Amino acid sequence: MIRIALDGMGGDYAPQVVVEGAVLAANDFEHLEIVLVGQTLALKQELNKHKVLGGKIVLQEATEVIGMGESPVAALRKKKDSSIGVCIDLLKKKEVSAVVSAGNTGAMVAASTLNLGMLPGIKRPGIAITTPTLHGMSVTVDVGANLNPSAYELFQYAIMSDVFAKSILKKKRPAIGLLNIGEEESKGTEVLKEAYKLLRESNLNFIGNIEGRDFFTGKADCIICDGFVGNVCLKMIESVLETSVKLIDRELGKNRLTAIAAWLLKPVLSSIRKETNYEEAGGAPLLGVDGNVIISHGISSALAIRNAIRVAGELVTTRVNAQIVEAISPYLNHTASPAQSSERKPSNA
Amino acid sequence: MIRIALDGMGGDYAPQVVVEGAVLAANDFEHLEIVLVGQTLALKQELNKHKVLGGKIVLQEATEVIGMGESPVAALRKKKDSSIGVCIDLLKKKEVSAVVSAGNTGAMVAASTLNLGMLPGIKRPGIAITTPTLHGMSVTVDVGANLNPSAYELFQYAIMSDVFAKSILKKKRPAIGLLNIGEEESKGTEVLKEAYKLLRESNLNFIGNIEGRDFFTGKADCIICDGFVGNVCLKMIESVLETSVKLIDRELGKNRLTAIAAWLLKPVLSSIRKETNYEEAGGAPLLGVDGNVIISHGISSALAIRNAIRVAGELVTTRVNAQIVEAISPYLNHTASPAQSSERKPSNA
Repeated sequence: MIRIALDGMGGDYAPQVVVEGAVLAANDFEHLEIVLVGQTLALKQELNKHKVLGGKIVLQEATEVIGMGESPVAALRKKKDSSIGVCIDLLKKKEVSAVVSAGNTGAMVAASTLNLGMLPGIKRPGIAITTPTLHGMSVTVDVGANLNPSAYELFQYAIMSDVFAKSILKKKRPAIGLLNIGEEESKGTEVLKEAYKLLRESNLNFIGNIEGRDFFTGKADCIICDGFVGNVCLKMIESVLETSVKLIDRELGKNRLTAIAAWLLKPVLSSIRKETNYEEAGGAPLLGVDGNVIISHGISSALAIRNAIRVAGELVTTRVNAQIVEAISPYLNHTASPAQSSERKPSNA
Repeated sequence: MIRIALDGMGGDYAPQVVVEGAVLAANDFEHLEIVLVGQTLALKQELNKHKVLGGKIVLQEATEVIGMGESPVAALRKKKDSSIGVCIDLLKKKEVSAVVSAGNTGAMVAASTLNLGMLPGIKRPGIAITTPTLHGMSVTVDVGANLNPSAYELFQYAIMSDVFAKSILKKKRPAIGLLNIGEEESKGTEVLKEAYKLLRESNLNFIGNIEGRDFFTGKADCIICDGFVGNVCLKMIESVLETSVKLIDRELGKNRLTAIAAWLLKPVLSSIRKETNYEEAGGAPLLGVDGNVIISHGISSALAIRNAIRVAGELVTTRVNAQIVEAISPYLNHTASPAQSSERKPSNA
């Protein structure tokens, strides 16, 4: 039995939708036990609305809630008994094997980094988002934890995303792309040029620089970028389908013939919607911290929460973190010095 | 009569498609004369395939061509008689009023910056791209000229895009948005926080931080960002429709009923395509340099070249550069020092 802590108070529709998601997960995944963390009176009230099969959801009190708009570090310092803080504490004490929260992303990153610490050798955490492409799912790291990564930190994101793509997305030899403004090695900032060198000299399946369009083409299984551009792109991807539907709707309103197509198209659009829906991915692992942490979208539905719990379970069973530690070890003599790091080849290359 | 220099050798399909575009423009815009620059023998051969109305296209020899993949500054130094170099020279000597090229973007930026220099008070040039949104066109600055702008340079991009949106996009009081990873003032890098302050204290219609999704919503008329994230987003936008069409095609292949919709949908898709087509915008002005310079997409069609020439003419007639110089003048006591620049209010605020 794998125990997973779920932040019952995190997300725009908490606790109602989060509890619904917990119930879905408890019913669907027999090997998981969910520790629902938060104001137990409110959580119990929501739980009573559902039929929960024997004993797979337990409650854990946390009296305080960190709001979505609060400043992460200040909120964590002030609210010692927050649901996010208690979740990460349970993970630290190994009372659970993973944490899922749809709450304040910054607070989740800060609590994880400060309380759990990093995996041996990893410099900074990165949020990994899976998105649909024309050729299957891809994973992008980072989408918001680290706005100004160094070349070596970008390189570490590539190592971690490679492990993730193999374990969770079931890619045999993930193609790693470095997000840039052109394909040539000479393109982009100094940091990106240095990251390019580190990647080329590694034993990863590095396919070179990729561009904005490749979020959709599926050219790369792993897209490596800083947290700023990753976050902007993620939000753009999320809005693409919505925009396309609105554009088609508008055109359909213009004449009767195409209005017939509207009706015929409905199943097509809902099929595309399902394929591209963030609900399927459920949540984004915070890679690099010493523990399995999943950050879900604030607007998560019950289905998204259920799937985030599923992914949390997969992180545990596939031992992603142990694999990351192993994968990074040949490169640990790479220091922050660009000259050294670009000269040294990994021993197993 | 407005004279516009057109780089006859620039772009993936030059000179053929560029000459076609010149002919379209010469026939459509009576007030424009096009100076077609490049290897005149080849250009003349292409021109002879078309019927050109009286004397509105003239040829100007430039013996060399800078390739799309060449290193900009090195190529400009080596090839003294390149079509890009000659175009910018003509503009410098005021023999033409504007330049259009679908050639090497970096070479265009370098030649313009080095040879024309900047408008009084402007620190760095920015490439301005117009893109369609659900509520009309918006303009994004910068999409690739300046990968690491300072806060004050971002502020200047806002001033320049405001003038552009008023003059060319006919917006009365353009809404200015700063691209960031969240709406709160506290979000993003230190540079963005400082740029936020400068914008808030200006007399621009600053609507605050915007996010990736707002490229489509049309919340802002002007999107201000660094050239790296702008370039990545631009390439993502360019690929969105293509991807949507492919996704719909794939779904349509799955059963007969929806295949009927495919036929009905064709005019809908081509209508959306037209609306969202880069061809309509034609090219991207390089704002901030002392001259009217338009950079077109390497894959420009004849129609795109024609429209780029149209926009070049509009830059001249609406005196965008003179307006920029006027708009920036109240802020010229803002120095690079963040403390000073954030304290001082413009005299006309």
